[in-house]
Amino acid sequence: MLNFNFYNPTHIVFGKDRLSELATLVPKNAKVLITYGGGSIKKFGTFDKITEALQGFEIFEFGGIEPNPQLNTCIKAAELIKENNIDFILAVGGGSVLDATKYISIAAKYEGDDYTSLIKHGFSPIPVEEAVPFGSVLTLPATGSEMNAFSVISHETGKYGIYSPLFYPKFSFLDPTLTYTLPKKQVANGIVDTFIHVVEQYITFPVDARFQDRTAEGILQTLVEIGEQTLNNPEDYDTRANFMWCATMALNGLIGSGVPQDWSTHMIGHEFTAKFNIDHGRTLAMVLPSLLRERKDKKEAKLLQYAERVWNITEGTSDKRIEAAIQETEKFFNRLGVATKISDYEIQKEELKDIVSQLESNGMVALSETGDLTLDVTERILENAY
Amino acid sequence: MLNFNFYNPTHIVFGKDRLSELATLVPKNAKVLITYGGGSIKKFGTFDKITEALQGFEIFEFGGIEPNPQLNTCIKAAELIKENNIDFILAVGGGSVLDATKYISIAAKYEGDDYTSLIKHGFSPIPVEEAVPFGSVLTLPATGSEMNAFSVISHETGKYGIYSPLFYPKFSFLDPTLTYTLPKKQVANGIVDTFIHVVEQYITFPVDARFQDRTAEGILQTLVEIGEQTLNNPEDYDTRANFMWCATMALNGLIGSGVPQDWSTHMIGHEFTAKFNIDHGRTLAMVLPSLLRERKDKKEAKLLQYAERVWNITEGTSDKRIEAAIQETEKFFNRLGVATKISDYEIQKEELKDIVSQLESNGMVALSETGDLTLDVTERILENAY
Repeated sequence: MLNFNFYNPTHIVFGKDRLSELATLVPKNAKVLITYGGGSIKKFGTFDKITEALQGFEIFEFGGIEPNPQLNTCIKAAELIKENNIDFILAVGGGSVLDATKYISIAAKYEGDDYTSLIKHGFSPIPVEEAVPFGSVLTLPATGSEMNAFSVISHETGKYGIYSPLFYPKFSFLDPTLTYTLPKKQVANGIVDTFIHVVEQYITFPVDARFQDRTAEGILQTLVEIGEQTLNNPEDYDTRANFMWCATMALNGLIGSGVPQDWSTHMIGHEFTAKFNIDHGRTLAMVLPSLLRERKDKKEAKLLQYAERVWNITEGTSDKRIEAAIQETEKFFNRLGVATKISDYEIQKEELKDIVSQLESNGMVALSETGDLTLDVTERILENAY
Repeated sequence: MLNFNFYNPTHIVFGKDRLSELATLVPKNAKVLITYGGGSIKKFGTFDKITEALQGFEIFEFGGIEPNPQLNTCIKAAELIKENNIDFILAVGGGSVLDATKYISIAAKYEGDDYTSLIKHGFSPIPVEEAVPFGSVLTLPATGSEMNAFSVISHETGKYGIYSPLFYPKFSFLDPTLTYTLPKKQVANGIVDTFIHVVEQYITFPVDARFQDRTAEGILQTLVEIGEQTLNNPEDYDTRANFMWCATMALNGLIGSGVPQDWSTHMIGHEFTAKFNIDHGRTLAMVLPSLLRERKDKKEAKLLQYAERVWNITEGTSDKRIEAAIQETEKFFNRLGVATKISDYEIQKEELKDIVSQLESNGMVALSETGDLTLDVTERILENAY
């Protein structure tokens, strides 16, 4: 097992009908900014429940945060906070609203004149000392942003992963019933995103980290068990609850502690979203299978473990078992309605080179857990994924 | 899945050779009290490493905290803190030192004249608002106290479980190499204690909490895989690291979130420790198998799941599979050198009634996840465990 630090102070409030507890967790007398996305929280009554729970607080609102939230949108919210001396932000939505709110929380305390400077530190801590505290009400399980300190912000043609210890929400409300009204496509994307978050912390090389491996496998098994069911029966509380809790646990630091990690699929996928505006989860599904095939020698031991423990594949040569496990993964994504080939989208084969160029210009020239997934390898992965 | 709250702000620093980082986590200029037990931390050099890491801090020390720490011992440490205006406590040891330190942390801020009043709230939050902050360097994996807000304090003939949100350590250092010098018996006790912590949050009745179940099973499988190995090869880093991390994860709130819990075995076991001074882990091992047999109707679904997923037992009638799983559990404890019968200790059968009387006088008259494990049932469990 590798050395690690684990620290995660977000207070999770999980379950149905608990929004009335919001007032006990928002600081007394705070001026509260509610951040949200396209307005479905108003359409389905969540906004009303929240403002009712927060009676007596002075409430501001900032809607219109887009999927893949834009820096310029966030800056507007930050300025609103500065102008009104707002003390607390309540993010209501999915990963995009959470991620935007994280950036807003530090931008609102930023006194310089170059907001873009805050997104250019990669996953090193952003050098800021203060943030407006925030909590969340999650409506879309997928990114894990509700219980981690990461965010991804889009600006011009780039997607910027950022990190700060100030980015842990003070609290997150996880109410599975708030997800009942989600479009099926978003649920499918969320399941795939969660699945691949786990894979990227799990299918690397073995370091004898048994709790982490078993827990990762437990999440994968659960997603396979409940994926289609929660897609097709959105109001089945328990399957939705299991999906929601797995999504949070997949990316809150737990299964990634003390193990190598390989975020190549995410890095490559981000470039597809930036260029073609394809949903994040879908970009991952079209890259991962080909990446696993390309890297099967590096990942052999964990791929075999994955085959056996997640898919119960124990017969045949190593190569056959690995290929069977990758095919099961593809079939699972396909059953959720998520394509696993780049050619399933309106992308020309010649455009794959543009993705490689984007990676190069963003400095993503040596990805993976071993740092040797170079651009020529990426190009081969993409060609085979087409 | 049941509704739940999950909150755990302890910062874990896991791995070898990291004690030099202590100075970055102890508050600057703090006067630090180091609490410890019987002195093995001095014998094996840990104390020296810690004081070296804390050069420049004013250090006090309080040793001699006994297993099953006594209220009166803790009060002495609290008075030392008051007299010297100490700002921070560093607990160095296992569960007893941690548990004592938790009580000390609030007793040192207590201004009343009845220290016993602080231990009489059961697992309701102790009504105090302030504690001396503390961190820990763990040397014995077992109780999970390094990452939870519980403590057990002994006073006169009783053991008192207590709880406060102030009881989360600010940080805990988990260095597997610090456990290499532990007596074999203590390691065996720790493995059994960890195993049974998991069982008490897992073998109850099903509520479709899949992440929690899979994670619980993962810890149990890991303990079975590495138990004997870490007992017999104390300096095998990875097995010791896996044991240490499992022990922490077994009782930090994670696997118990959203599921019923049955702490009967602990409650009954405490009375054996109070009366006969038998090691905590050992009291659990002699109660659990009989309790599972007695309660197999209430726990049937989870016992069958346990049989299948932990022990790979899938053949035969329900009764046979359950009995086989319980026998595997006994054999596992026995292989660790831990007895599973009360008659293996110097206890007369007539004395079992005293245990039941103790439970009664401590109000433990309706234990279990369903609240129907009454004293007559307990008596039968004990008779069958003899």
